Amino acid sequence: MKNILLVVEYEGTNFSGWQKQIGERTVEEELKKSLDKATGEDIKIIASGRTDRHVHAKGQVVNFKTQKNIPGENYKKLMDFLLPNDISISNSYEVDLSFHSRFDAIKRKYKYLIYRRELPNALVRNWAYHFPYRLKVSDMKEASKALIGTHNFKAFKASGENDDKINMIRTIYDIDIIENGDFLEVIIEGNSFLHNMVRIIVGTLVYIGTGKIEKKEIENILKSKNRKLAGITVGAQGLYLERVYYNKNYIRDKIY
Amino acid sequence: MKNILLVVEYEGTNFSGWQKQIGERTVEEELKKSLDKATGEDIKIIASGRTDRHVHAKGQVVNFKTQKNIPGENYKKLMDFLLPNDISISNSYEVDLSFHSRFDAIKRKYKYLIYRRELPNALVRNWAYHFPYRLKVSDMKEASKALIGTHNFKAFKASGENDDKINMIRTIYDIDIIENGDFLEVIIEGNSFLHNMVRIIVGTLVYIGTGKIEKKEIENILKSKNRKLAGITVGAQGLYLERVYYNKNYIRDKIY
Repeated sequence: MKNILLVVEYEGTNFSGWQKQIGERTVEEELKKSLDKATGEDIKIIASGRTDRHVHAKGQVVNFKTQKNIPGENYKKLMDFLLPNDISISNSYEVDLSFHSRFDAIKRKYKYLIYRRELPNALVRNWAYHFPYRLKVSDMKEASKALIGTHNFKAFKASGENDDKINMIRTIYDIDIIENGDFLEVIIEGNSFLHNMVRIIVGTLVYIGTGKIEKKEIENILKSKNRKLAGITVGAQGLYLERVYYNKNYIRDKIY
Repeated sequence: MKNILLVVEYEGTNFSGWQKQIGERTVEEELKKSLDKATGEDIKIIASGRTDRHVHAKGQVVNFKTQKNIPGENYKKLMDFLLPNDISISNSYEVDLSFHSRFDAIKRKYKYLIYRRELPNALVRNWAYHFPYRLKVSDMKEASKALIGTHNFKAFKASGENDDKINMIRTIYDIDIIENGDFLEVIIEGNSFLHNMVRIIVGTLVYIGTGKIEKKEIENILKSKNRKLAGITVGAQGLYLERVYYNKNYIRDKIY
């Protein structure tokens, strides 16, 4: 038996997110169809995490076990022939049988792209969130510092039925906000993220940038654990799963 | 009567090019539909030039005449409500009645984007031409110099029925080749371009980069006026109409 790791890229525009759902086109299902063809088996894919409808990935990491004796590094070319063209594999190789792409991930990096021009742009509409109003970026940067560290992020999670049972403690290692021409990039690294957490953090920082929320309020929002005090959930089209990090002991080769 | 200039952006992916054709979705037709709605008139659009199926534009320039008394600068917001989301208007204003977006254009700038990674990437498939083989960029740069200036570019034109009647003399002002991570950008400025000329020039430079055509051959290809000696016509998805330049006398405001 082999345990194969794939680094997966996808354009989220035409996907109803990662996870298999009846009647919906999802990345997991398309990837499974191609892996089933490649191996002749009924493959069970483990991913580092789900992504929502229209979210993009540059470095989603998955693994699967197979009896098939295909060398791990061959999958990246083989899958190029089998996958639809909005999914691609940038790397593939065999890893230790114990490797688990979700449980063993130690850090995830997301990028959120905001397009700031007054008028929307056809060339970026599926790739960035259009926000045409003035943003005081220095306030956004200052406020973002309050989120770094280990906190209960309930105020920054899409509220759900089972919230009582979910551990809401997460660690954010860093938030970088970079002005790049008409774009504003928000880069967030953390151990893992709650549902919609990146998009609600960015929505809150955007509200701070406009002055709708005062920058010093962010600590109170965090402490409140109240989703209603945070900002909007910004659009999925601006979100990229950039990279997933693992302890090198699990991995025989470099991922990227 | 007013003469209105629009700077138009479009993602070419889902268009059969610029020009109206029965049964095809084209940029001209979509733009006309929206302008007809905006003005209540039967608008005739004049464009700086056509673009082919799947070619993108960041700065296509068009003009049209209307009896409607809408201020020129209002069109850019008005059209945002009327256009499909793969076309956008970055600027609009009134120009002299004598202005003609094609006849008055003095320079056109195109960008061609090549993606050089070994494996295709889902996130760039509609935005750049995937070329996975090694390219000697210094040879491409050297060869490109031979094309600068005023020449008969027949060898770099898609051959057509009426070639005998077409003036094939064009002037290329500059060709820049820029390495940018996994991308190679070829930027070409000229007075105007023959059908497929940019894509055949890039295809010839790519052949020179691989060694399939020797760099010193480019002058002979130009002199030969023989399309068969030049390289391939590279894919439309890598081509961008970046900008069209006009003599300032015709224009009341800056375009970009």
